[in-house]
Order: sequence, then C-alpha cells, then structure tokens
Amino acid sequence: MAITFFDLVDKDGRRYSPYGWRVRMALAHKRLDAAVEFCWHSDKQKLNFSGQHLLPVLLDGERAVSDSWTIACYLDEAYPDRPMLMDGVQGRSFAKFINGWTDTIIGRPLVRSLYLDILKSLHPSADAQEFRRRREGRNGMTLEALYANRAKDFDELNHAMTPLNELLRQQPFVAGGEPAYADFIIFGTLQMPRHLNGIDPLSEQQDGVRRWRDQVRRLFNGLADSV
Amino acid sequence: MAITFFDLVDKDGRRYSPYGWRVRMALAHKRLDAAVEFCWHSDKQKLNFSGQHLLPVLLDGERAVSDSWTIACYLDEAYPDRPMLMDGVQGRSFAKFINGWTDTIIGRPLVRSLYLDILKSLHPSADAQEFRRRREGRNGMTLEALYANRAKDFDELNHAMTPLNELLRQQPFVAGGEPAYADFIIFGTLQMPRHLNGIDPLSEQQDGVRRWRDQVRRLFNGLADSV
Repeated sequence: MAITFFDLVDKDGRRYSPYGWRVRMALAHKRLDAAVEFCWHSDKQKLNFSGQHLLPVLLDGERAVSDSWTIACYLDEAYPDRPMLMDGVQGRSFAKFINGWTDTIIGRPLVRSLYLDILKSLHPSADAQEFRRRREGRNGMTLEALYANRAKDFDELNHAMTPLNELLRQQPFVAGGEPAYADFIIFGTLQMPRHLNGIDPLSEQQDGVRRWRDQVRRLFNGLADSV
Repeated sequence: MAITFFDLVDKDGRRYSPYGWRVRMALAHKRLDAAVEFCWHSDKQKLNFSGQHLLPVLLDGERAVSDSWTIACYLDEAYPDRPMLMDGVQGRSFAKFINGWTDTIIGRPLVRSLYLDILKSLHPSADAQEFRRRREGRNGMTLEALYANRAKDFDELNHAMTPLNELLRQQPFVAGGEPAYADFIIFGTLQMPRHLNGIDPLSEQQDGVRRWRDQVRRLFNGLADSV
C-alpha cells in the first residue's frame, strides 16, 4: 500500500519542522518509501481527512495517523518486521521520556529564538499577524525581543543538554550502538535552527552532541543534508 | 557466595545516600540478600580492599565493585537469571541517561539545599570543617546561604522534572509497566531529603511523580519505608 507523508514547508521551500524530521528519519529507518505532500502553515483544510489540522500526518492506505509520536508508534506496530524504532518496553519508555524532554526542556528555549525566522517564512503572509499575536501573548515579549534574548535561552539549553552530552561521550548514539527513534527526536529539533537561520545553539562544550549530530546527518545516504 | 554491601550511615544511624538507595533497591529487585556493613563519611580505610574510597561498594565473594552505576551493571551481568535492572541496549541507554540527568540536573540543586543537614550528621564531627570548606568553595556561598536559597533550587528542580511528571502521568513506572533501575536511580535521589530534613522538594504540580514515589515506597514489602 502507498504511504503519503504530509509535511510542513515554508514559502521558500524549506522543511524545518522538528516533528516532520522525526517522521522522515523514522520512515528511512524503517526502509519505507512515502510520497510527500507539502503543506503550508495554514493549509488546514488539506488535512481534514485526518480529523485534525496539525502536521505531520501519515496516510498509509486508508489509515490516517497524526502526531509524530503516534506515527512512530504506529510504524513499529504496523511494520514489526522492519528495523524497530523502539526496542522493548524500556526502549519505548526511553523514547517517550526523550520526546517530552526534547519538546519542553530543549525545544522551548530553542523555538523562542526562532519565532522571528518562522514569521518571515510563513506563506501566505496573512498568517503572520496571527502568528505574532499568539506567540507574543504567550511569551510576554515581542518576537524581536525573544530573538535578542537568544544567548540566555541557549545557555539554558546547553545546561539542560549536559546529561545528553555525557551519554554521547560514552556511546555513539542516544539509543546505544545504533541509532533509533530517541536519536531522531532530538535530531529533528536540532534541524530547526539549521534550516531557519543557521545559528547553532550548541556551545563548544557539547563535543559529544556535536560528534553525534555529524553522524546522524550522514545516516540514510545523508538524508538530513540533502535539503 | 555471600554478598556484602558497604553503605553510608550518619552519626544518627540514618542511611541517606542516594547511591546507597539505588543499590539497595537494585539488590531487592534482583532478589539478592546482602549483609550490610555500615561506613561513616570518612571511613575510608575500611574500603581499601576496593582500591578506592567512595561508597557504595559491593563485595560479592572475592569480587569488589564500586560506584552505583557499575554495581547495577555488574548485578545484571553476574545474575542474568534474576529480574533484570535494565532490559536490552535501549533500556540500558535509558538508565544511563537517567543516571546522568538525575545526578546533574536534579541532584545538584537538591543536594545544595541539604549540605547543612549533611554537615550536622557527619561523624566524627572533625570531618565537618573540611566538608564545609570544600562545598562552600565549590558553590561560592556559605552552607547557610545555600539552605536559605532552597526555594529557588526547588523551582529549578521542578521545572527540570516536567518531562518525568508527564511520563508518569501516562505510565506507572519510569521504566514502563514495571519498576526497574531507571526508577531506583531517581527514587534514590529523592530519598535524600526525606532522610536528612524531611523537606519535600516536589511541588504540587508533580502529581505523576508523587503518585509514582508512593508506589515505589511500597515495593519489596515497603523496603524504602522500613528505616
């Protein structure tokens, strides 16, 4: 059966969604081909078939699955003969913890610093006003002030990364000797700044994370470097 | 073969070491009996046989193993037919990450708030001066100031705990449906304040962590409540 993967694209054709990257890497890990259907930030009607309006969405035959975490679990359940994204109960608990940790502790300070670049990339630009209004309301600062505050946010991110860096000084991948979904979760989030403004949030101290990131970029014939 | 477990005890007989608790819970999980040998903070000569001076130490027959993480790995390797502490490569990676995360991100703000209580518990009290000098040098504050600063440290700890709380809202134990070493790592660290000064660092928002902590206290016939 054919798989269609609905991923976010900005007006310049960039695919920066951390959740989209998680699914792309997951599909490659499972050796599954998927046709890609690009959606803008506000292309909500295109996703009506999925019963919700958020990206990414996977359409596998007749089955629509949304939310990157749910998609990863679905892929392991639907394709257990392919390489597993999560191994055993503890492997799944690990990925689940890393998913929450990445989205809250790592993702929040990072994404705040990127709002201004996301704003500039929105298409159609009529979305921009609503995007700005919501983010500024939530953070109590203008997007320009959030961008200017990024050094402080990066300090917070780098402090939080200490245990990850320590782990990656001792083993090649987050999951162990081989990459798995826990790796793709964090990697997906680190793809955001790379595609949006090229500013690297990792400090020089993150030698383990930097080496690992280079390794993950080379996986699947350099999939992460191909765009 | 007989196992001897060298654990830290303070002058009031309290066993508050987070690393000691990890090993105690691990031994119970593996259904292994061990004779306990109590050591004071500065009982270093008693551990000479282990080639180092830090607690906990396990002496299994002729084999001395130090460092709680190394002990946990040793127990799974030496007793693979007993319940496993870590399951598979990803389960081990999970526990390793949680070990680093607990010691740095959770442990540091917590332990700073407890130095004054540890100081009071040292035996012989001649150790106290050296203990104070080192901790105050490292933190650039008096132990009294660190204690007074605990609300700020607890805020930091509770923020860092967000993804753990989220996980424990969705599943009974850190490791999954059943407890395992990842659980004992975090639990061990939370035993410190309980035994040292009774101040609970967890905020009201940590409903998942609180419910889980109650469950872990009841494991192994209430081992963690027995002291």
